[in-house]
Amino acid sequence: MPELRRDPVVGRWVIIAEDRARRPSDWGNEPHLSPSPDGCPFCPGNERFTPPEVMAVRTGSAGANGPGWSTRVIPNKFPALQIEGGLDRRGEGMYDRMNGIGAHEVIIESPDHSAELSDLSLDAIERVLGTYRARILDLRNDHRFRYILVFKNHGAAAGASLAHGHTQLIATPIIPNVVAEELEGSLQHFRRKERCVFCDIVEEELGDGARIVTRNDDFVSFEPFAPRFPFETWLLPRRHVSSFEEMDPAAFPALAVVLQETLRRLHRALNGPPYNFLIHGAPCAEPRLPHYHWHMEIMPKLTRVAGFEWGTGVYINPTPPEEAAAYLRSMDPATVPRASTLSTRAESAP
Amino acid sequence: MPELRRDPVVGRWVIIAEDRARRPSDWGNEPHLSPSPDGCPFCPGNERFTPPEVMAVRTGSAGANGPGWSTRVIPNKFPALQIEGGLDRRGEGMYDRMNGIGAHEVIIESPDHSAELSDLSLDAIERVLGTYRARILDLRNDHRFRYILVFKNHGAAAGASLAHGHTQLIATPIIPNVVAEELEGSLQHFRRKERCVFCDIVEEELGDGARIVTRNDDFVSFEPFAPRFPFETWLLPRRHVSSFEEMDPAAFPALAVVLQETLRRLHRALNGPPYNFLIHGAPCAEPRLPHYHWHMEIMPKLTRVAGFEWGTGVYINPTPPEEAAAYLRSMDPATVPRASTLSTRAESAP
Repeated sequence: MPELRRDPVVGRWVIIAEDRARRPSDWGNEPHLSPSPDGCPFCPGNERFTPPEVMAVRTGSAGANGPGWSTRVIPNKFPALQIEGGLDRRGEGMYDRMNGIGAHEVIIESPDHSAELSDLSLDAIERVLGTYRARILDLRNDHRFRYILVFKNHGAAAGASLAHGHTQLIATPIIPNVVAEELEGSLQHFRRKERCVFCDIVEEELGDGARIVTRNDDFVSFEPFAPRFPFETWLLPRRHVSSFEEMDPAAFPALAVVLQETLRRLHRALNGPPYNFLIHGAPCAEPRLPHYHWHMEIMPKLTRVAGFEWGTGVYINPTPPEEAAAYLRSMDPATVPRASTLSTRAESAP
Repeated sequence: MPELRRDPVVGRWVIIAEDRARRPSDWGNEPHLSPSPDGCPFCPGNERFTPPEVMAVRTGSAGANGPGWSTRVIPNKFPALQIEGGLDRRGEGMYDRMNGIGAHEVIIESPDHSAELSDLSLDAIERVLGTYRARILDLRNDHRFRYILVFKNHGAAAGASLAHGHTQLIATPIIPNVVAEELEGSLQHFRRKERCVFCDIVEEELGDGARIVTRNDDFVSFEPFAPRFPFETWLLPRRHVSSFEEMDPAAFPALAVVLQETLRRLHRALNGPPYNFLIHGAPCAEPRLPHYHWHMEIMPKLTRVAGFEWGTGVYINPTPPEEAAAYLRSMDPATVPRASTLSTRAESAP
């Protein structure tokens, strides 16, 4: 059973998950992400190699846990948190711990082994977004869970252990520190100004324009003013919505356009980089907040986190966001090759 | 001129330092850390390849910027922050920025190209610790600086770009977020209990014993209760001292013993891992605080930070600290080979 432990100085929670130590990627050896579908557990026909599916989008009359799906959700075979059990909060001397209860799921984005998310058609991306929403809405009903994070690790250097395009989702029984800081910071802004800080940022960025990557009537992507990493990119709805799952699904086509174009420009500019993205939204219990605004943070993995960053939380970024944005805007996303043709770079050591 | 920018949501500062983009290690290609001293700018006789030294420990009558030193301090050739100039704090729309003023120095630990810190004699380690202290005390006189972090990147995977053993130091014109969180957390504890939380942790760990790595009368090293990383190890003075530089230098021999043995056990257990360490102490302006206690955090680089960690600040650690501590205690530090013989592992890709 994984365990949650809390640092007594700063209140940071960690997950001690022994079962995951058996994964080859956990001990510093670069996993080999197979460029071929042979033996890939996420490929159609290999459904028996995964735990039974949680949901799938299927056409026709194909049965569960067989081929015929376009998007498929499964429990993570090596979960960081475990779905069964109670939290059993307890102290040990001055320390706090609880059972590692939560959900850890994998969203297989398409049957195509070598298609990266941005390679998919707009229809297929909409289906993936709809799958994120359906899983969050379902898990939100479990009152043990306080927060649900959707995130993606693409490429071995960004933490992926399988090449087939997938997103992950982890539901936690705590509000994670990073989210708590954003909630607190945005609440302070709201108390002073009675405005959402993210709405203000969207206005500022659209007005200035220097850091914009792409936009349409409903969504915008840009390089943030104070990015931790070169080519860190944020994607936000232009109108206030606090959580991803509260968004009207009618907005998904417009979101798919901005997401696809943003990812394609990053792929093109950085030659298919390893990257992480994550979706931040309001906590499960308060999905509608006037001060918080859901957003996606996309972080190409180009630099290292080292002693200075660990010791300060101050990131050294060699690329001004204005230069990164201008470079991304100069790319022609229509000519972006499929990620699969770039797999050497995307999956090489950092 | 590097620039400091502040994120408007969480108040996180970043350093935008364009000049550092020219370093080969900044763009994801693994730097080659030369196992041989040929052309190493940190080796004796090659002093002309570094900026003029800030200080050095020399025997005899050898002049500055030539051989004959045992420990040498130089400005970083690619500084993250620049020493000359004013802060020039200014707003830009809703955003905050200031000039990237600070100090960025490199402490070359010994003339021996292939000696890792733990390979050095106790005398030599004491000299390195004394050099840290001398540099902090000197830089603390510059009232533009609010904080001084001493840190080490060992091995390419931990961010080192040169193999020759060295520590770095960065003085910042802000209190970094990570430090501010520790100061705030320990102040809350002090207000409730009128005790230092780190003193309480030392008592708890010495009483329990399960997470202790090594100890003597004055210092103790242990695996913290809620470690972010496998084999994360903390080293603290057993009696309350808030900052490294306020410590009586008479304590350095005892500190050198615990530091050397801790590093040697980690080297032995993990086959010469890449690692970071950092020294956290009180801010420059308040070096003596009843609630804060200086400490060293040592973090072997064995796992990856990926989307979940970026999105939550919750680290997934596959190794319980009690198991890591028992394993480290089972090592015989006397038989640890020199780090140089382990350079393949230490300097390979993660």
